[in-house]
Amino acid sequence: MTLLWQFYFCKNKIIIMTKKFAAINYISCLPEFEPTFENLFATRKGAIDTMPGFVDMEVLKPSKQGEPYLILSHWDNKESFDTWTKSPEFLEGHKRGFAMLEQAKQEGKPAPMKSEFKVYKIIAE
Amino acid sequence: MTLLWQFYFCKNKIIIMTKKFAAINYISCLPEFEPTFENLFATRKGAIDTMPGFVDMEVLKPSKQGEPYLILSHWDNKESFDTWTKSPEFLEGHKRGFAMLEQAKQEGKPAPMKSEFKVYKIIAE
Repeated sequence: MTLLWQFYFCKNKIIIMTKKFAAINYISCLPEFEPTFENLFATRKGAIDTMPGFVDMEVLKPSKQGEPYLILSHWDNKESFDTWTKSPEFLEGHKRGFAMLEQAKQEGKPAPMKSEFKVYKIIAE
Repeated sequence: MTLLWQFYFCKNKIIIMTKKFAAINYISCLPEFEPTFENLFATRKGAIDTMPGFVDMEVLKPSKQGEPYLILSHWDNKESFDTWTKSPEFLEGHKRGFAMLEQAKQEGKPAPMKSEFKVYKIIAE
């Protein structure tokens, strides 16, 4: 059984973290937008990584097309996550995606992606 | 930005793992079954932990009642996960849950929980 704390190698430092809280952004993309969406994360600047209480994140690509991608992030607590969603770093980290949504809207096209945040408590490992 | 490999402290050893593949078991419970379900994981024997290619797992409890719990597990590759689902360890690890489902069926009661596996490739961290 793994423990509720782990060593992380992050920014050239070994950090010991606890994982107590998780947020998942479920993102549904139009099929033609999927490569662009994946590239947004492959080239992300890491705005979230500097937030206090942030532990780690990962992008899960579904095996079946049409199902949502999952952007899973772990946090020390819910307050750290809430602080991030209201921060300038959140806007900075989502700037390119928001611009693409705005452009589609202005052109009268359907939104290329839709997202829904759900939050979770980690109760066992 | 975190890296695609991490240190883990597991069974009193430090292990370096890569995370490439994830499986999520989405489990919907009847409200009255939730405490029993949570106890199944709080007291799990760790059958999965011994499987080759297994990295880690965690149980995510939704913030809204009625939404599914997520049992997230990471694996080195899809083959390791597939091997586990067909293994004696899989049956052993789910023995108590399967018995509860069978008992409800025999008593003509609704299933206390329903599960759906989805699998994912990890494309960014």
